Amino acid sequence: MHIAILTFDGFNDLDSLIAYGMLGRIKLLGDVNWRVSIASPTARVTSMNGLTVDAHVGLPEACQADAVLIGSGMKTREVAANAAIMGQLQLDPARQLIAAQCSGTFLLAKLGLLRSTPACTDNTSKPWVQAAGVNVVNRPFAVNGNVATAGGCLSAQYLATWLIARLKSVEAAREAMHYFAPVGEKEASVERAMAHVALDESLQAIA
Amino acid sequence: MHIAILTFDGFNDLDSLIAYGMLGRIKLLGDVNWRVSIASPTARVTSMNGLTVDAHVGLPEACQADAVLIGSGMKTREVAANAAIMGQLQLDPARQLIAAQCSGTFLLAKLGLLRSTPACTDNTSKPWVQAAGVNVVNRPFAVNGNVATAGGCLSAQYLATWLIARLKSVEAAREAMHYFAPVGEKEASVERAMAHVALDESLQAIA
Repeated sequence: MHIAILTFDGFNDLDSLIAYGMLGRIKLLGDVNWRVSIASPTARVTSMNGLTVDAHVGLPEACQADAVLIGSGMKTREVAANAAIMGQLQLDPARQLIAAQCSGTFLLAKLGLLRSTPACTDNTSKPWVQAAGVNVVNRPFAVNGNVATAGGCLSAQYLATWLIARLKSVEAAREAMHYFAPVGEKEASVERAMAHVALDESLQAIA
Repeated sequence: MHIAILTFDGFNDLDSLIAYGMLGRIKLLGDVNWRVSIASPTARVTSMNGLTVDAHVGLPEACQADAVLIGSGMKTREVAANAAIMGQLQLDPARQLIAAQCSGTFLLAKLGLLRSTPACTDNTSKPWVQAAGVNVVNRPFAVNGNVATAGGCLSAQYLATWLIARLKSVEAAREAMHYFAPVGEKEASVERAMAHVALDESLQAIA
């Protein structure tokens, strides 16, 4: 199982790295077949806050992953205008889960993967994500089949919970959220996350 | 204004990097005197999940910061047993704010900065943090003067909110939390964070 987090120059630290940290939980529990990667066009990539991280994989390998999460950042419109990058983003919801957060939703729209389904983004990106034809809803999480979106940096926790639920199990998603939640607020945090994830009709059938 | 986030080999991605991402907000709003650093004994440091980041400063420079946040990780007890590292950690709550999260609370105890005041850690670290003499409480956030602790990875948001409130203003802390919170859950998220931060009596006087 490989999950790739697309992370571009000027990326939002929270969006990419909250998901990275939470998804790594399954690996730490001993599932050696679970692999989580920061994917970038360059070997090293620097965040909007000046944090430089090593990418684990490039874009072609990321596009082969079982799930691809598109983070956000300060240069998303530049990425969307870069034909060399966009040409590499061969994503297909028929064979992989696809998630996007905040301005990442803009890239999903540009890749033709959203159409008119309700989707989420952050309040700052909202005007230009709407201008790209996205039906933006005032919620932290939305899902349509194998494509999910989230809005607001800290909603990264909901995308991560959804990916764990779909790729491992609803029980593993609950366990992960319980583990990461603030002490003294664990039950409320789990219920909040699982209520969002339950919007996924395929999980309602499983749960 | 310099905030240093102590980040050791095997660090918890969420604890260090949620705080880093949130604290950077003040800088992005144009306060050029606001500086947030990942501080490590080595120039590059790798997380428990295999993410390698460049440190911005070493430990001696971190100890001169206006605020020092101690993240957690898989090797905290090894750090505490390393005299070369511990000898460099010259922290002083009389001249700087000090915050610790999860197993970072263990290092605070070893540095003699907690005494018997109530403090927070995560549930996994709790037994050995208690064994170090810490009075662990079942809350996400606790504060005593210039020293604050948090428990549970996602409670990093409360330490960041507290640091912004103390170093900038309560209003800036509210604005930051509102910006980062999930869309559709912003007011509830802000109220939850500010209720914790209000445990700081010095802020009650200001607010």
